[in-house]
Amino acid sequence: MRRRRIGIDVGGTKCLGVVLDDDGEVIEEQRRPTPPGTEAFVDTLAELATALGVTDSLGIGVPGMVTRTGIIKASPNLIDITDFEVGRMLSDRLGFPVEVGNDATCAAAAEWQVGVARGVSDMVMVTLGTGIGGGVVAGGRLIRGANGFTGEIGHMVVDPDGLPCPCGRRGCWERYASGSGLAQLAREAAIGKRLRRVLQLAGGDPFNVRGENVQAAAREGDVEALGVIDLFGYWVALGLNNLTNLLDPQMFVLGGGLAASGDLYLGPIQKWFTELLYAPDLRPHPQLAFASLGERAGAVGAALMTELP
Amino acid sequence: MRRRRIGIDVGGTKCLGVVLDDDGEVIEEQRRPTPPGTEAFVDTLAELATALGVTDSLGIGVPGMVTRTGIIKASPNLIDITDFEVGRMLSDRLGFPVEVGNDATCAAAAEWQVGVARGVSDMVMVTLGTGIGGGVVAGGRLIRGANGFTGEIGHMVVDPDGLPCPCGRRGCWERYASGSGLAQLAREAAIGKRLRRVLQLAGGDPFNVRGENVQAAAREGDVEALGVIDLFGYWVALGLNNLTNLLDPQMFVLGGGLAASGDLYLGPIQKWFTELLYAPDLRPHPQLAFASLGERAGAVGAALMTELP
Repeated sequence: MRRRRIGIDVGGTKCLGVVLDDDGEVIEEQRRPTPPGTEAFVDTLAELATALGVTDSLGIGVPGMVTRTGIIKASPNLIDITDFEVGRMLSDRLGFPVEVGNDATCAAAAEWQVGVARGVSDMVMVTLGTGIGGGVVAGGRLIRGANGFTGEIGHMVVDPDGLPCPCGRRGCWERYASGSGLAQLAREAAIGKRLRRVLQLAGGDPFNVRGENVQAAAREGDVEALGVIDLFGYWVALGLNNLTNLLDPQMFVLGGGLAASGDLYLGPIQKWFTELLYAPDLRPHPQLAFASLGERAGAVGAALMTELP
Repeated sequence: MRRRRIGIDVGGTKCLGVVLDDDGEVIEEQRRPTPPGTEAFVDTLAELATALGVTDSLGIGVPGMVTRTGIIKASPNLIDITDFEVGRMLSDRLGFPVEVGNDATCAAAAEWQVGVARGVSDMVMVTLGTGIGGGVVAGGRLIRGANGFTGEIGHMVVDPDGLPCPCGRRGCWERYASGSGLAQLAREAAIGKRLRRVLQLAGGDPFNVRGENVQAAAREGDVEALGVIDLFGYWVALGLNNLTNLLDPQMFVLGGGLAASGDLYLGPIQKWFTELLYAPDLRPHPQLAFASLGERAGAVGAALMTELP
């Protein structure tokens, strides 16, 4: 019998903790609001872990840059401090090792170990949410990087003169191919009274256009909205192509909020992916799959991180 | 005692074969012109291997897309056929397994095992030549990818509306950050009588400007030429930044023809790399090192490929 594997995924508003059985199935889960402040933060995680019956190991997934030794270097949406040694603090409190990883890396581990990418040795997880996160499995191993920062794929620059990014640069992939990217593409298209149906759904102001408005209009068959979806698919495919050239994965796992409407995007993404691929006739194309573990992926992966090779 | 390790690097004009001793030092080398035609090609490789005293294993590095089972899928500068089973043909001829890999992947293996990146668990090799090749070591393993195509980093798109690339797309990294990229940046700068000293060295025609002209003028201290070198450094740094966001390496190993004048580029590359890096104050910066094995890297790596984990 394996030990009790427990993982917690820390989000901007809530912490989700899970307990896994021997097959990696979630047999228990609990939530807590994510509190402000470092002390309350550590208290909450320790309390949640204890409530879940933690005995000898714990994995935590957090958004942002986390070192392999459990130090949060930057997590702008979570906590406003750097060099926060959450791993050591929790480990001191609980009395056993605590593994801390980036949440998208945890999600990648989960999809690879017990999700849609089970048995795949080379895959890239791409979480299309407000931004874009990622996780990389290569040669049958989860890739963490020299510091633990592997998979910041949303900040791959794909247009150096492009849209400014909060990270300080221009033209990061997530400016185009994320949820906020979709909204931005739609806003640009809506300026000058174009994209009429989408504008209507958004109340008439191009600057209020959201991704959901585009999705809704596209589902009605609105041609202009479908054009925005197509352009969005182009940008997603462009980044996936870059990742293919770099890492030659067998599969991409698309997750995050936008994956829920994946049926709208899959066609355009696949069309543009093939269009952009180098030597498309001479190679197997990577499979595009949707994440199977939903919002639990991060917590499940955090639990699994404690025992990956 | 180890077996006799033999590797051959196949280039557009010549094949270089090496024999390694137990420490990975080259103890013998021989060259052959690369012949035209598939039959002569296999003959030459078999003859060269035999001349080097091959007994039980052989590694071959070739430019282009090579599968992990030794099939050349595309190698435009080498041989005008696809699905060329060079690995199996050689193996049938010689009577033992033959490992075939991409030449930049081989070079990465060499720098990692016996070169400047010895002991580094996460590194990316970047060969700046006519184009840009690459090889990836992550988590202490050479990454090959699902098909063997990992490391086609020169075709990472960094400007979708940019310069057309022979691969059929626009704005591939190697359009800007390779030897031909440097020449192109200089030609653009030279049009309209700018870049006077470089133009002079090129005989007066902007379309004849070569990278060497820029280098020569820059070494004289010509400010306009130094400006082109700075712009070139920007483009190299942009791609290295993308790779850092994706893979978080501890080191980049810069090789290829341009590495020979690395002293000219290192300053600008480092300046722009820091400028573009996300959260530069919160992380160790990857080390930028120059390849140490020179033109032998591919052959040495090919020999080592036969025994990598």
